[in-house]
Amino acid sequence: MLHMSSDAESPLLSPVEGPPARVLNARGAGRGVLVCEHASRFIPAALSGLGLSPEAACSHAAWDIGAMDLAVELAGALDVPLVFSRISRLVYDCNRPPERADAMPAQSEIYTIPGNADLTPAQRAQRADAVYHPFRQLLSATLDTRAAPPVLVTLHSFTPVYQGRTRSVELGILHDSDDRAAQLLLTAAQGSGLRAALNEPYSATDGVTHTLREHAIARGLPNVMIEVRNDLIDTPAGVNRITGLLAPMLAGMIDTLAPSEAEA
Amino acid sequence: MLHMSSDAESPLLSPVEGPPARVLNARGAGRGVLVCEHASRFIPAALSGLGLSPEAACSHAAWDIGAMDLAVELAGALDVPLVFSRISRLVYDCNRPPERADAMPAQSEIYTIPGNADLTPAQRAQRADAVYHPFRQLLSATLDTRAAPPVLVTLHSFTPVYQGRTRSVELGILHDSDDRAAQLLLTAAQGSGLRAALNEPYSATDGVTHTLREHAIARGLPNVMIEVRNDLIDTPAGVNRITGLLAPMLAGMIDTLAPSEAEA
Repeated sequence: MLHMSSDAESPLLSPVEGPPARVLNARGAGRGVLVCEHASRFIPAALSGLGLSPEAACSHAAWDIGAMDLAVELAGALDVPLVFSRISRLVYDCNRPPERADAMPAQSEIYTIPGNADLTPAQRAQRADAVYHPFRQLLSATLDTRAAPPVLVTLHSFTPVYQGRTRSVELGILHDSDDRAAQLLLTAAQGSGLRAALNEPYSATDGVTHTLREHAIARGLPNVMIEVRNDLIDTPAGVNRITGLLAPMLAGMIDTLAPSEAEA
Repeated sequence: MLHMSSDAESPLLSPVEGPPARVLNARGAGRGVLVCEHASRFIPAALSGLGLSPEAACSHAAWDIGAMDLAVELAGALDVPLVFSRISRLVYDCNRPPERADAMPAQSEIYTIPGNADLTPAQRAQRADAVYHPFRQLLSATLDTRAAPPVLVTLHSFTPVYQGRTRSVELGILHDSDDRAAQLLLTAAQGSGLRAALNEPYSATDGVTHTLREHAIARGLPNVMIEVRNDLIDTPAGVNRITGLLAPMLAGMIDTLAPSEAEA
């Protein structure tokens, strides 16, 4: 029988598969830090594809389609660091703490994830040790190196249809207890032509603001979670258009909340 | 009639489409600079898709499949700048000078490019002005800002089958008149498990070393052009595996040819 879950005694990631998270543009001069928790649909070979069909393994369940392409563009446009997970959220969802069942979901909206059924505590701990803790340590270390407090921005995408219902919102602007960045972006979005909404299609009550809480609110940093409908960023033309709309909105918000020394 | 070529009087790129080229990780501490000339299959809206079929527009003719994903990984792994074109090589191939016919090809291996047929001199000049000159100026400026002379590495991918012939080479290491970096990489590749070859599947005589000549050889910088077979980097698992193999090879080569001040 093929094992879809790894032996908790063996390494989850082989050396050639590289680290679970990476930072790009670490010395960027901008006063923001971007995060992409669901950047990749990569499943380490040790997990035998989690038993997923090819369709499920390439779907939104496995990653946020378009989010990393957008994040790379925005990191370049804003000259800010980008911290990203290199591992599918079906292996470990870096926007969830280890105690949450959906950190290693056995069921998505549509798909069952056979390799996540009945994980033992040792297997769950291995996933967190291999993926989540290195990710959060890299993000924490990246924030520590900034000369001045940055704005934290997390980048996500969502499906146009969820549980049979078409979503009309194009740009979701989500906040937890600190809505400074979200309110500025909502105002800026009004001239963008994008259908923007606060706390759509998810909100803090859905448990999606874990990164914001852990890394920004705990440090007093302004912060926001961006959700882009994935049909807007599933082609290079779409990514370029949304970058062109979002980059000045984010730059203006960052300038207001974390002005550069020359401007402060 | 739909115009597939733009009016040479109107802008080729709209403001929301953004700049033709970008740099990531501009302040990276590593002693290399990466270049990805064929990073994107994006065709500005003004060119009406160049009259391509959807298949052609997504094919290797339009971009180097996997090359940008690999480049982003390597820029992070090596902490070096990455300069990339955001425009399809069918609009303008940034690895070709404007006087070459294949800078704006009317025919690829398989596909005709209707929007490139019978371009006027004004249209050719517009393409070079909108895409090529900003790209080369950004690369040149990025090299100018480096504190010490870096190694220039260009990243490309190639199709597994070309004109009916299957290519067995997996990693092509190409050089122009300076083969220092190429020879070091060839030696390093011997332990990698990759089928590597010098000046395969192209070589300087095919005109593919334009970026090397213009930006590295003219400055006396060590340089090399990497070609990866695109079936090895068309999935996240493949990109991660090739990154894991290439990153230490490139790091070792860079350390030899452009040692850091502490090591020199």
